[in-house]
Amino acid sequence: MNSDNPITSLFSTAEIDRIFSVRRQLQCMTEFERALTTALESVDLTSKESSAAFDSLRDAAFIDTASLMREAHQSGNVAIPFIRQLTAAISLRNPEAALNIHLGATSQDLMDTALVLQMREAFEVFYRDLHKLDQTLVGLVREQAQTLLVGRTWLQDGPPVTLGLKLAGWLAALRRHKQRLFQSGQRGLVLQFGGAVGTLAALGEHGPAVSAVLAKQLSLREPDLPWHTHRDSLVEIAGNLALLVGTLGKIARDVSLLMQTEVAEVFEPRAQGRGGSSTMPHKRNPVASAVILAAAARTPGLLATLLSAMVQEHERGLGGWHAEWETLPEIFRLAAVALSRTLEIAEGLEIDPERMRENLNATGGLVLSEAVAVSLAKHTGRVKAHALLQEASQRVLHDHLPLRDVLLAMPEVSEHLNESELTSLLDPRNYIGSTQHFIDRVLRESPNRAEDALR
Amino acid sequence: MNSDNPITSLFSTAEIDRIFSVRRQLQCMTEFERALTTALESVDLTSKESSAAFDSLRDAAFIDTASLMREAHQSGNVAIPFIRQLTAAISLRNPEAALNIHLGATSQDLMDTALVLQMREAFEVFYRDLHKLDQTLVGLVREQAQTLLVGRTWLQDGPPVTLGLKLAGWLAALRRHKQRLFQSGQRGLVLQFGGAVGTLAALGEHGPAVSAVLAKQLSLREPDLPWHTHRDSLVEIAGNLALLVGTLGKIARDVSLLMQTEVAEVFEPRAQGRGGSSTMPHKRNPVASAVILAAAARTPGLLATLLSAMVQEHERGLGGWHAEWETLPEIFRLAAVALSRTLEIAEGLEIDPERMRENLNATGGLVLSEAVAVSLAKHTGRVKAHALLQEASQRVLHDHLPLRDVLLAMPEVSEHLNESELTSLLDPRNYIGSTQHFIDRVLRESPNRAEDALR
Amino acid sequence: MNSDNPITSLFSTAEIDRIFSVRRQLQCMTEFERALTTALESVDLTSKESSAAFDSLRDAAFIDTASLMREAHQSGNVAIPFIRQLTAAISLRNPEAALNIHLGATSQDLMDTALVLQMREAFEVFYRDLHKLDQTLVGLVREQAQTLLVGRTWLQDGPPVTLGLKLAGWLAALRRHKQRLFQSGQRGLVLQFGGAVGTLAALGEHGPAVSAVLAKQLSLREPDLPWHTHRDSLVEIAGNLALLVGTLGKIARDVSLLMQTEVAEVFEPRAQGRGGSSTMPHKRNPVASAVILAAAARTPGLLATLLSAMVQEHERGLGGWHAEWETLPEIFRLAAVALSRTLEIAEGLEIDPERMRENLNATGGLVLSEAVAVSLAKHTGRVKAHALLQEASQRVLHDHLPLRDVLLAMPEVSEHLNESELTSLLDPRNYIGSTQHFIDRVLRESPNRAEDALR
Amino acid sequence: MNSDNPITSLFSTAEIDRIFSVRRQLQCMTEFERALTTALESVDLTSKESSAAFDSLRDAAFIDTASLMREAHQSGNVAIPFIRQLTAAISLRNPEAALNIHLGATSQDLMDTALVLQMREAFEVFYRDLHKLDQTLVGLVREQAQTLLVGRTWLQDGPPVTLGLKLAGWLAALRRHKQRLFQSGQRGLVLQFGGAVGTLAALGEHGPAVSAVLAKQLSLREPDLPWHTHRDSLVEIAGNLALLVGTLGKIARDVSLLMQTEVAEVFEPRAQGRGGSSTMPHKRNPVASAVILAAAARTPGLLATLLSAMVQEHERGLGGWHAEWETLPEIFRLAAVALSRTLEIAEGLEIDPERMRENLNATGGLVLSEAVAVSLAKHTGRVKAHALLQEASQRVLHDHLPLRDVLLAMPEVSEHLNESELTSLLDPRNYIGSTQHFIDRVLRESPNRAEDALR
Repeated sequence: MNSDNPITSLFSTAEIDRIFSVRRQLQCMTEFERALTTALESVDLTSKESSAAFDSLRDAAFIDTASLMREAHQSGNVAIPFIRQLTAAISLRNPEAALNIHLGATSQDLMDTALVLQMREAFEVFYRDLHKLDQTLVGLVREQAQTLLVGRTWLQDGPPVTLGLKLAGWLAALRRHKQRLFQSGQRGLVLQFGGAVGTLAALGEHGPAVSAVLAKQLSLREPDLPWHTHRDSLVEIAGNLALLVGTLGKIARDVSLLMQTEVAEVFEPRAQGRGGSSTMPHKRNPVASAVILAAAARTPGLLATLLSAMVQEHERGLGGWHAEWETLPEIFRLAAVALSRTLEIAEGLEIDPERMRENLNATGGLVLSEAVAVSLAKHTGRVKAHALLQEASQRVLHDHLPLRDVLLAMPEVSEHLNESELTSLLDPRNYIGSTQHFIDRVLRESPNRAEDALR
Repeated sequence: MNSDNPITSLFSTAEIDRIFSVRRQLQCMTEFERALTTALESVDLTSKESSAAFDSLRDAAFIDTASLMREAHQSGNVAIPFIRQLTAAISLRNPEAALNIHLGATSQDLMDTALVLQMREAFEVFYRDLHKLDQTLVGLVREQAQTLLVGRTWLQDGPPVTLGLKLAGWLAALRRHKQRLFQSGQRGLVLQFGGAVGTLAALGEHGPAVSAVLAKQLSLREPDLPWHTHRDSLVEIAGNLALLVGTLGKIARDVSLLMQTEVAEVFEPRAQGRGGSSTMPHKRNPVASAVILAAAARTPGLLATLLSAMVQEHERGLGGWHAEWETLPEIFRLAAVALSRTLEIAEGLEIDPERMRENLNATGGLVLSEAVAVSLAKHTGRVKAHALLQEASQRVLHDHLPLRDVLLAMPEVSEHLNESELTSLLDPRNYIGSTQHFIDRVLRESPNRAEDALR
Repeated sequence: MNSDNPITSLFSTAEIDRIFSVRRQLQCMTEFERALTTALESVDLTSKESSAAFDSLRDAAFIDTASLMREAHQSGNVAIPFIRQLTAAISLRNPEAALNIHLGATSQDLMDTALVLQMREAFEVFYRDLHKLDQTLVGLVREQAQTLLVGRTWLQDGPPVTLGLKLAGWLAALRRHKQRLFQSGQRGLVLQFGGAVGTLAALGEHGPAVSAVLAKQLSLREPDLPWHTHRDSLVEIAGNLALLVGTLGKIARDVSLLMQTEVAEVFEPRAQGRGGSSTMPHKRNPVASAVILAAAARTPGLLATLLSAMVQEHERGLGGWHAEWETLPEIFRLAAVALSRTLEIAEGLEIDPERMRENLNATGGLVLSEAVAVSLAKHTGRVKAHALLQEASQRVLHDHLPLRDVLLAMPEVSEHLNESELTSLLDPRNYIGSTQHFIDRVLRESPNRAEDALR
Repeated sequence: MNSDNPITSLFSTAEIDRIFSVRRQLQCMTEFERALTTALESVDLTSKESSAAFDSLRDAAFIDTASLMREAHQSGNVAIPFIRQLTAAISLRNPEAALNIHLGATSQDLMDTALVLQMREAFEVFYRDLHKLDQTLVGLVREQAQTLLVGRTWLQDGPPVTLGLKLAGWLAALRRHKQRLFQSGQRGLVLQFGGAVGTLAALGEHGPAVSAVLAKQLSLREPDLPWHTHRDSLVEIAGNLALLVGTLGKIARDVSLLMQTEVAEVFEPRAQGRGGSSTMPHKRNPVASAVILAAAARTPGLLATLLSAMVQEHERGLGGWHAEWETLPEIFRLAAVALSRTLEIAEGLEIDPERMRENLNATGGLVLSEAVAVSLAKHTGRVKAHALLQEASQRVLHDHLPLRDVLLAMPEVSEHLNESELTSLLDPRNYIGSTQHFIDRVLRESPNRAEDALR
């Protein structure tokens, strides 16, 4: 939240911090008031040329934030002291222009629309990083389509998969997230403008016209009607970011598990000073995964806050709206840093295919017991085959023999499957089924086409 | 959860309870296995006519649930003992058909797809009730388009709105929810079929063909690849239900606040024995609102659970998947009961327009102070006008005089606005701005068109 | 979090912000390392006089936060770059002293203990404000012990209570919170010191001795053993703050409901510029309640994050610990601001006993229907009495007659209760039961005694 | 929730299901009304011998649950129809006794006190199981005090710990949980009795006397005053269970990570049919850990619900209270099953000390690099020593040589440490520091003493 706070900076990016900074918020608020003044001009509700008085205010440097703070404590929000300071600043430039600043609008129109403008900027960051990550993953999926490693279920080794398939799963999920973000942006990145109680009464008959020009000035769509206490589209956006972080957390969990000393198949990129320990000289900590997992632990609770806060009273609510102010940007920050650090991992992913092979073989063929069971079942039925392989598995574990040898020594098996058949069944390359089919299906949908769909 | 549990039954509906009952789950699991057998037949992986053996099993009555329970404790899920019992039951009918039951699939394929089938049924309930609520609200919005009542912000009285506008806000939100549900159904109501580690290896080269027939049998779309540990689309569906409940909670909050003894503008429908108290004979409690508000308090935490649980390991996860089993149906139950009771409120809503008028007038015109300020501002500027009205407001509160009289006695006001102008400004009918415009915009989008968009 | 962020500053206090500032954190980290050096001296693991080299570093001004930030991105926490900078700074003063800085400790020892020191400071703030609020409420309870107002259940008017009773309920809850905070402080405000994996191996046989001196230097108790991945006592503290905020939220909800224009019985304190609206000149918004309610909406999700994050791996966890870093201080901030603003409300509470009386009478005696039912029941039994009063209540509502008149006209009532009995039964002063008994019981436990219990 | 629901039964225990069954709830409600009748007798508010009429009703078999359900939908809770049915049942036995059933009480008194009685029963289950687990762990800690295994931080191997130390950490945490439960039970397992608005007005002057006898009958303490909308002590209890589940989740995470195929150091107990897979014959899934981890994923969101729901209005709230009804028992269920399955794991824990030794040695001594660095630092200073060991570590990883050989070949190391010193430093038995000291400190506090403290 604070750019000179090292702890905070771990959980955000400089770019998203800038977008959700107070300065940017005040700039967007100024932008709203300028656009409103232009709209009021268009229906003669303020004097012509009023909006020109805003020309020199765009960077919000005119604001005295210290006094804004003090007043916000009394007024309950920043909009009221902001309007006071803006009016004073405009007044110096064009006293007549100052007369009708904020006419027709309420504090929440100003704050909500400024937030929408900030979110729209942040969406571009997410689209860009999702696109980069998509391209990186497409490359990796192609390269690693046939790289075999142990498939793992319930944290136990199972039959083989390929690294390409694993990564294709990530890729397909990220494309769904992109689609969701786009759909929620369509619904939620819209103007807020309703005045005190959502009727635009202060503008008399001019409400629709002013609203239309205001929206056009800000390049925002108008909603059907003001949404002061209907926060569904806002929370939907946050929810889609929380979903994205959930997927990124899954990826980071996988990377950190694969990076365990005893597994050692995949690693976060290497860098000077990265992942060291203050005590243990040999350590190489999964530092990016730590941040992503922390983000995945934090977003669910933050989203729950926004959902609880949807129960807002009447025309404009008490407490619920206020609960959003810090929570929503926090979700954007966590999603941005999680995405950025996943990109960092993907772009520099270290892969040890030899170790993957070793791990595949380490259990003497046990991970392929299903392959044998399936073939055997053609002769014995599934139940019997399953029981035979369970028995064989126990011998493998107990006697530290390869599964092949154990099976050959079991007459109920060897009467159906000979040595060469067993050798073939126990070759992991022969037991990856539809892997390439699935990979192809994901790759067929090119990142560019996905991108096109969004614009 | 338990149909003879009166407390639970308050927080569910009989219909949704049936859909998420164990019996229905076991039926859907049977349906999956039958469809899989049909698919295996199509590629000669099981004997022809095998699927016919399922004909008499559709109601899942063949299951011994007590032993299912005992075994589930050891196996960690119901799928394994279910397969055992199913195999035995089929075996009695056609021993050959029993040999290849479940071939190629894993427990999670079976349980996830059964869940998708249950959710698909539940979606129909939501679409139906959302459609009914839409039609009811359209009628109410039309009727009440001009019914004036106090607009309220921060729980304080403000300028007037109309009841029609308030209801149009609900209506517009509900239509967005319908659209969201539809979009998430498109993404999430898809087949799960990947085998042990998502490769369909046990089917050899036949994976894609079996998957295609299986999907067709169940009238489900196939995903790009199995989603065993990518739960985003499932959680998205739950998230959209949680969003819906948020809106319903907002509606219930409004109704219960309007029903307060001191406000008394709108009421839940009257019924024999409804809303009584065990002690206070005169009470009329907002019992439907209580249930809806409870649902709105509960869904956020349940959704947070699903989001946290997205961090699932490798090919199939440990604990995260299990955390979904009771949580996801619970969200469906709460959303269904909240929707059903909102429908009950809307269909029998009692409205007291006279009391609305009294409340509008109770503050001596204060709620129209903004109307006067806006007109006065044309002469004095906004800041000055605002200050004058604040001063007048304080006199109204202090001296218990009507605002009109106080203003007429203030020369800085009366020099600009005469008695008849003030009278007109203080008439609530003249200060509802774009209300009709907003209502028309919402009504223009007919419920039928919205419905069409979904199918 | 950021002292020049007006929005953030609404949701924290300057005092608690200072305690959880980066500067204070770095100071506490320096304090830890100084105390550790002193402890190492005591067993000759560093040269005598080493700790004197820390004398000039207490304000942490020696830290270059910009480079700390950059390095933290790579190292995953601030401790590693902090140690580097501290070592350099000490080296300039006493090169020998620099050799053994941090010996025996791990990053998490440093960061956790610094956090404990910060929390200990914050506890003093909570004890102080809880004590002030206790005293204020004791005064109010005494004053308002007999001030009658409507009791309200399910947001509907019921029999009378007194304002003193309402406030005594708040007071009793706050005393329970004080007790909880104290008990969790006993468990949780303890030293963290275990080295890399919690064995203090780097100190050889000197572990216990160094730990004891370190704890003594920091005036902290030692735990039974290091708690790197056992976060229960930390989360317990956060949980008790979340519970406190829950109670404060209940208070703010009550205040804001009582402040509704149609109720108008109790108000937040009046102040220049307070609670105004950017559009509505007459408004007096419950601004402190808004902040407290927002805090109450936000803490549950934050606590859920900490609870989820308890599942930390092995000797020191990945992601779970990191999820605490911003979340825990956020809970302290929200609890501090909620408490401070509740104190502000209590100290300046405006009470309108006349309006309370009017509201009691506004329903023609209906709120006392239970009083009549109870007396009538002695003659008719409870069920019959309840039914008669329900009938009478409906007539009151329908015919706008006082309950007294309606009852007198009902022979089944008037045969048992005569006019003077009914008049007495319908006097709210006669129907507050054990109110004074309850108040006395709460007041008997003086705030000083409660305070004593804590020290 | 439903004893014949196999999925639910995975996430509860039969014992706790019985305590929180509808039947038991109705029994506790009957117990409350009987005790109230006895109390009313004592002050002559009902006829003598009234309570005897309850003698035959204790098992709540007199209740028609189907009609209870239908009425609850209208009345908003089960208390009102329950009172109606109870009154009818008593009336058949002693018509006079039926006249004053429930006199003075409100629905919430009845439901809250019944809940307290149910929770008190559940507390006994938790005390018992915590005691058993304590004893089991004490035995294991003693046995495994010197069993070496890799310490792991950030999911990377670090210096050694002993299994006894790991288990002592679990034990110490569980003792804190027992203490917390006890303290919250002291505060929260108290009578609820206040009548409609918490004044006991319907009892006139007899409120205190009736309350005292009622409490005595139920062996419950009286609170200072009714707590209808002050839910802090209830939520505190739930919070302490959630904290307990957090610790159990940490234990299950550790067990499941240690059980990974590549680690294989510790296992859940073996049993017929346990942990099998529907497809993979060799699998041994950590099924108890899966349930515990699921519980740990679910309780945080449920607790957040209870915390959010604390914001209850006035004398008795709307929606918040209702949100507790299913949520609180759910937390009890999840905590009970998590505790019971942890006990199952602890009692049958399989340990492979040989594999632990292999894993310690698998990295060629790297996990002891800190031991060497600390000794070397005495000669070179910490910074230099750390750098030398980092360099050596990289060579170990790159050249697949033992750390000992690499270090001996580095002159900057070998000039300070000779071969025998290095051999000794690289022996894990020599680098466990204060392990035994910590274990002794935990064991010194015997489980019996901890138990005594509670009673």
